[in-house]
Amino acid sequence: MNNSNINTENLDKPKNEISAYDIAVKIYNLDTRIYEHIGSDLGRVFIGDADKCIEKLRKLIRTNPHSYLLRSEVALIGNMARTVKDKSEKRKFMTEYNEILKIITNLPDGFGTVDILDEVAGELNVSNLQAHHDNNRMIICISRTEGSAGTDIGFALADHLRVNYYDAEIFKDFVDRRDAEKDAKWESRKIDLSHDTVNNTGTRRFSRNHGLPKRDADFFNQSELLCELAEQEDFIVIGRCADVILKNNNIPHISVFITAPVEQRARRIMELEHIPYKKALKRLLKYDNKREKYYRYFTRKIWGQVYNYDLCINSASYGIDEAVNLILRVINKEGKPNY
Amino acid sequence: MNNSNINTENLDKPKNEISAYDIAVKIYNLDTRIYEHIGSDLGRVFIGDADKCIEKLRKLIRTNPHSYLLRSEVALIGNMARTVKDKSEKRKFMTEYNEILKIITNLPDGFGTVDILDEVAGELNVSNLQAHHDNNRMIICISRTEGSAGTDIGFALADHLRVNYYDAEIFKDFVDRRDAEKDAKWESRKIDLSHDTVNNTGTRRFSRNHGLPKRDADFFNQSELLCELAEQEDFIVIGRCADVILKNNNIPHISVFITAPVEQRARRIMELEHIPYKKALKRLLKYDNKREKYYRYFTRKIWGQVYNYDLCINSASYGIDEAVNLILRVINKEGKPNY
Repeated sequence: MNNSNINTENLDKPKNEISAYDIAVKIYNLDTRIYEHIGSDLGRVFIGDADKCIEKLRKLIRTNPHSYLLRSEVALIGNMARTVKDKSEKRKFMTEYNEILKIITNLPDGFGTVDILDEVAGELNVSNLQAHHDNNRMIICISRTEGSAGTDIGFALADHLRVNYYDAEIFKDFVDRRDAEKDAKWESRKIDLSHDTVNNTGTRRFSRNHGLPKRDADFFNQSELLCELAEQEDFIVIGRCADVILKNNNIPHISVFITAPVEQRARRIMELEHIPYKKALKRLLKYDNKREKYYRYFTRKIWGQVYNYDLCINSASYGIDEAVNLILRVINKEGKPNY
Repeated sequence: MNNSNINTENLDKPKNEISAYDIAVKIYNLDTRIYEHIGSDLGRVFIGDADKCIEKLRKLIRTNPHSYLLRSEVALIGNMARTVKDKSEKRKFMTEYNEILKIITNLPDGFGTVDILDEVAGELNVSNLQAHHDNNRMIICISRTEGSAGTDIGFALADHLRVNYYDAEIFKDFVDRRDAEKDAKWESRKIDLSHDTVNNTGTRRFSRNHGLPKRDADFFNQSELLCELAEQEDFIVIGRCADVILKNNNIPHISVFITAPVEQRARRIMELEHIPYKKALKRLLKYDNKREKYYRYFTRKIWGQVYNYDLCINSASYGIDEAVNLILRVINKEGKPNY
């Protein structure tokens, strides 16, 4: 059909490598035909001696099929094919291109065949639509830098999804109330324990804190509460190392880190608090530092590093409303009221 | 109707603060009614003397309406209202809760009223659906760490969206070809320049590189090409500081950074290259370091920091296919073939 095409029958094929050789010829021929159609040397991926080009390609396919070099060369042919103006010709070229692509990606060790997916992380990630979760619980953990509007985004998201919103204050409140309830029970058992010589308040605190320092005990109690809540309801949780707690307890969720450039954040705090820029900046750094330390202390991980979350968002690129919309798209929900 | 409710008429309202006071009473009353309905002290946000609670709330609303304390207290009422089992009661409570929320968010300096949006960044971000772009060009800039499968995700995305894919190799190829074309033109003008005593090849290189060192000239030429391409077509571009180049040239795009935990990445390289873990790790760190330096040199920004991109993805939480799906959801596209 096209006399510039290499006929695979006429060439001396290396034994046992027919497949790599055939692919190389397919690629070379497609490039040649697209080049002839466009009629410009600039459109050509492989210039020079056909045998040498094919041999180079064959080796690449044979030894290093996932190589970015191979992918780039194939991609370039695709890019060229897309510039073809004649629609029916373009369709033919693209069909052939896609066939080649399919062959290469299906090679053992072809590009894309070795996935980066961490099975455990993928399974726990509720925004990974391919994961099969036993329940449809939607728990969104938001970590955020000071001034990034992360809490505003979380609150607006909770409001939109009609789910509960938990932050440090609410958690503290919850735990305090539970403690009060426990204390009330303790008081009612006081008579039975009257023979006990140990100071009651001290024992009570010791029992409640499991003998841990207050900060550790608070963390422990809040972690326990978080896991309990996760069994009962969908919710948004701000901070509290919730991402790591849920992960360690094998509870599906999505972890999102929200931040923005320091300057934008400082300006926002300035406007909110009616304080000068320098003071806003100082406050921002102080809180970020505090959160970084808290996260490191309880998780031994680095706060704000992309690989510690499922997703990170620059809120300055979206703003509050659009960040909410973005997260809704990510979790594939449109937020229907459930009452 | 409910005799435990505070009647705003009977109390001595502080002058000129009617609004904050009325809101405080509304909040207090809703909490009281929900508490009465649930019939448990544990459901109650405000415990103790009504006047004191209202005064505390009023001050919070008056002086610090964006405060997380106010938001948390209001959120807690909402959380409680959602636990109400009687559907019609729940609806009533939620309607009232939403009214209060609306009033507070509409206060001057109420939470959510000071946005974090950077107008310029938001306008340039093609995944910000509220931004009004003059054209519908879809340019996706992907930066990635070694082994994170960022290039595989980019390639699969380009294939899915049927748009061109550009990486360092392809750019180099493009620029080389353009240079070859320029050289050809130069050769044809040689006769006219024969009186020139300067070495032609040297002048040619000087002219092509604008007198810059090769690395800088390459960057300059590739940047120029990137901006030219952005006028003509949708595409995916890997690396090349494309995010910063497009931003500086005011060209709409979305910038995505893709990474994964070091261990996952090293294991993937191990499997791809059939090399030991230590060697994979070494290679990974070498390439990451190279990219970090390149990015810093040309942009003066820190590579891989969340605030330098619109969005960052942990590919280990998604895998290649699902990361592609995620980006498609983010840009609100489903990828229709255009040929």
